[in-house]
Amino acid sequence: MSLNVKNPSHSFTIMNELVLPNDTNTLNNLMGGRLLHWMDIAAAISAQKHCNSIVVTASVDNVSFKQPIKLGDVVTIEAKVTRSFNTSVEVRLDVWAENVPTANRVKSNEAYYTFVAVDQTGTKHVPVLQPETEEETELYEGALRRRQLRLVLAGKMAAGDATELIALFAKSESNTK
Amino acid sequence: MSLNVKNPSHSFTIMNELVLPNDTNTLNNLMGGRLLHWMDIAAAISAQKHCNSIVVTASVDNVSFKQPIKLGDVVTIEAKVTRSFNTSVEVRLDVWAENVPTANRVKSNEAYYTFVAVDQTGTKHVPVLQPETEEETELYEGALRRRQLRLVLAGKMAAGDATELIALFAKSESNTK
Amino acid sequence: MSLNVKNPSHSFTIMNELVLPNDTNTLNNLMGGRLLHWMDIAAAISAQKHCNSIVVTASVDNVSFKQPIKLGDVVTIEAKVTRSFNTSVEVRLDVWAENVPTANRVKSNEAYYTFVAVDQTGTKHVPVLQPETEEETELYEGALRRRQLRLVLAGKMAAGDATELIALFAKSESNTK
Amino acid sequence: MSLNVKNPSHSFTIMNELVLPNDTNTLNNLMGGRLLHWMDIAAAISAQKHCNSIVVTASVDNVSFKQPIKLGDVVTIEAKVTRSFNTSVEVRLDVWAENVPTANRVKSNEAYYTFVAVDQTGTKHVPVLQPETEEETELYEGALRRRQLRLVLAGKMAAGDATELIALFAKSESNTK
Amino acid sequence: MSLNVKNPSHSFTIMNELVLPNDTNTLNNLMGGRLLHWMDIAAAISAQKHCNSIVVTASVDNVSFKQPIKLGDVVTIEAKVTRSFNTSVEVRLDVWAENVPTANRVKSNEAYYTFVAVDQTGTKHVPVLQPETEEETELYEGALRRRQLRLVLAGKMAAGDATELIALFAKSESNTK
Amino acid sequence: MSLNVKNPSHSFTIMNELVLPNDTNTLNNLMGGRLLHWMDIAAAISAQKHCNSIVVTASVDNVSFKQPIKLGDVVTIEAKVTRSFNTSVEVRLDVWAENVPTANRVKSNEAYYTFVAVDQTGTKHVPVLQPETEEETELYEGALRRRQLRLVLAGKMAAGDATELIALFAKSESNTK
Repeated sequence: MSLNVKNPSHSFTIMNELVLPNDTNTLNNLMGGRLLHWMDIAAAISAQKHCNSIVVTASVDNVSFKQPIKLGDVVTIEAKVTRSFNTSVEVRLDVWAENVPTANRVKSNEAYYTFVAVDQTGTKHVPVLQPETEEETELYEGALRRRQLRLVLAGKMAAGDATELIALFAKSESNTK
Repeated sequence: MSLNVKNPSHSFTIMNELVLPNDTNTLNNLMGGRLLHWMDIAAAISAQKHCNSIVVTASVDNVSFKQPIKLGDVVTIEAKVTRSFNTSVEVRLDVWAENVPTANRVKSNEAYYTFVAVDQTGTKHVPVLQPETEEETELYEGALRRRQLRLVLAGKMAAGDATELIALFAKSESNTK
Repeated sequence: MSLNVKNPSHSFTIMNELVLPNDTNTLNNLMGGRLLHWMDIAAAISAQKHCNSIVVTASVDNVSFKQPIKLGDVVTIEAKVTRSFNTSVEVRLDVWAENVPTANRVKSNEAYYTFVAVDQTGTKHVPVLQPETEEETELYEGALRRRQLRLVLAGKMAAGDATELIALFAKSESNTK
Repeated sequence: MSLNVKNPSHSFTIMNELVLPNDTNTLNNLMGGRLLHWMDIAAAISAQKHCNSIVVTASVDNVSFKQPIKLGDVVTIEAKVTRSFNTSVEVRLDVWAENVPTANRVKSNEAYYTFVAVDQTGTKHVPVLQPETEEETELYEGALRRRQLRLVLAGKMAAGDATELIALFAKSESNTK
Repeated sequence: MSLNVKNPSHSFTIMNELVLPNDTNTLNNLMGGRLLHWMDIAAAISAQKHCNSIVVTASVDNVSFKQPIKLGDVVTIEAKVTRSFNTSVEVRLDVWAENVPTANRVKSNEAYYTFVAVDQTGTKHVPVLQPETEEETELYEGALRRRQLRLVLAGKMAAGDATELIALFAKSESNTK
Repeated sequence: MSLNVKNPSHSFTIMNELVLPNDTNTLNNLMGGRLLHWMDIAAAISAQKHCNSIVVTASVDNVSFKQPIKLGDVVTIEAKVTRSFNTSVEVRLDVWAENVPTANRVKSNEAYYTFVAVDQTGTKHVPVLQPETEEETELYEGALRRRQLRLVLAGKMAAGDATELIALFAKSESNTK
């Protein structure tokens, strides 16, 4: 079997959504849950492109919502795969909100979703991701640390086995001594 | 000003949703983004009850999806406030999926969402949460650690200032030596 | 075959829904039809729990809408089975609307829906309902009278056979003489 | 003020809806609550036409669901006002379901909804309905009896004051003696 | 095989829709795309009635939007088949918008959609349309010209073969000489 | 006033949508009306970017649907402004459908939508579009011909005044002699 390798640009996906009344709360701001839903669809399309497979959401990392997005704004979501594991991929999302008439555009969120590739019978192996640019390499390397954090938070890895995180915080400890 | 104090039971909220075709992917499983949206609404109702205020989603912690939830299943979401900060609250969510005809019910998720209390002019102070049971006290104490993690991940706190996390991972480091 | 018996508490179901813009009319009040739809889903979940079966709506009794429910309110629907018949159950619904920021909560409706238990081949026998509390016994006994009214209104029972209703109104006649 | 009078034909309204996947349960049948929602919209349009006013749903009479309506069927709802009261109207609904490719069309429901005419300040007087055909006259006369039943069921009229119903069931009693 | 012939009245279809918040833009006007969607459903029901078959949209002719339709308006769409071809039909749509409380009703659009009759295996022959009234005959005759325009615009017919259009514009040319 | 000029690339917009169950007919194909709705939103975002204004749909040109798009496919819509008029713009749309797991991607549609720039008081002047590439220039020049066709079809221009169309078809006439 020849090695199946893909670059992040292959899975790059853009989604634009218009904030409609039903997406908003009583202050006319986009509800956080609605945005999480759109981000899931954009990330799933990106993951599908890398995996050439149906995918299911495995996890969502911490997402924080900085500024309110208003009714009538255009939400732009960009997604691309940052790293592949055996049967799963991590997808990075960047989200902007734009009031198009005034051309006022602000960064709203960054987030990471992970997906597992599946077919009718179970999980599937996925192509290997090969980063190309410097930024892609940085995202690729950070993926390991985020993966350990996910596993610790999901109770699937002991804190003592999270070598990447220990290095991060232990170093911090030394600094604060 | 007399102190405004509430218990977690005051904000306890139950939501039941039926998984309909539009909520599912091509494998007839509930899409992750749809569930995140329902969880946001349930958590917002719970936060509103504690704060007696409109609230906006500030962040979502790591959420992992363990098992597929099927078309026709009933999703039960339980939410309650675990800790209050100045103008925000943390809400704990427990999610189950049940195939009601067979009475087969599985735990699907746990998650934490945070909300900021707002009115037309800005953020508002919120009542103080007072845990009662042992489980509530444990959730209350863990909230500080989760808050530090959120701040570090959002780039609003240096790793070296996250004393709760340093203690957790530094201790781990000692163990692994 | 041992007798399959269940209590009303077994089918007790709570649903909370947030009134969003698309649920409202041009006065920003929840539309009656939207509420009937939510009540149907809550009642169906309750009926499914009692019957351990897929169920289909057989009838809705008179429902009256007392007070407008506003955009942004939380609608709480409680449902439980009041009586079983051969292949069907009656479900009682209690509906409240709450403006959560002001904690102003009002009773909006009571209603009865009936459901038939079905599978791919047709109708199914359902477990027997055994009331426990005084209130549950009262609901259980009233169910016969409501059933006769449904049958008369649907043209499936002659007024002269509706013994429960005749007793009710004939007694009234004597009183008015 | 000249008398404002209208015929039932003035408020006659037809609605056609296609049963889509999200309208159906796991047996691919239209959910009862979804149909009640469509009926409410059709009836509200009819009531608006008679009243030349915004209207709000006041009550729904007993509705029974006879036969399953399938995914892909066309649901046809016909609505017209049967009688006016001071500030409200009763609307009669007839519902059919058709599998258009096979031209198989079945009557699904009849129902009565009532609406109150309102504006920003409160309830409004409505035009007087004048029946024209024999069928319209029959519906007009039956409206009084249905109104008493609604009031008794809503606890707003004592059974002993429901003269129309007493006549109906007392007569039945005599027959059964 | 006896000839299967139908009149336009056989496929006549009325649809009424209420403009709800999610159907509107930030000026509270119905979005054009939402109206095109409703028109497609109304036209598809009409085409199904003529063809006694499932149908798929083949094309939409030029549609222009003259006046804004407001939130709360009732949109009435009337559809009927104007001409049949081998495996397809053309459907004429007339659209009105009404502010029901003021009884102010304006013509909003006319349009033509075409549909192909299909089953699981492919396209199907459709019944022949026989116009009856003068207006129906005019629509029937104009259908050929519209069909040529569609084919030219879709690149499936050379301008030089569009004899109906050449006659129309060549005559115009003579007039302008 | 300095001249406000923009290139087509400024308004370039990409939208990706996943075909969900409610978007499909009983053959599991995307309904034409749903696609027209998505195209309207994508085109409106593009027109807003060029005009820096709220826009309303003025017309849709002929759209033909070549191949069925399946449930689960990803629909990609690309939109950009081709020409500006005084208070309106023409937007070109290209639509593809992709079965992502198999990477099978087909061109589904091309179309032109026009939009008028508006604010609360009425129509607004829009920036001038300046094409850059050869393809953009071709689209720019064809816009005049499409505009005449729209005006003729909407009954706002006599066929004899449509000089661009007369040239097209009169030339065709000569060829066919």
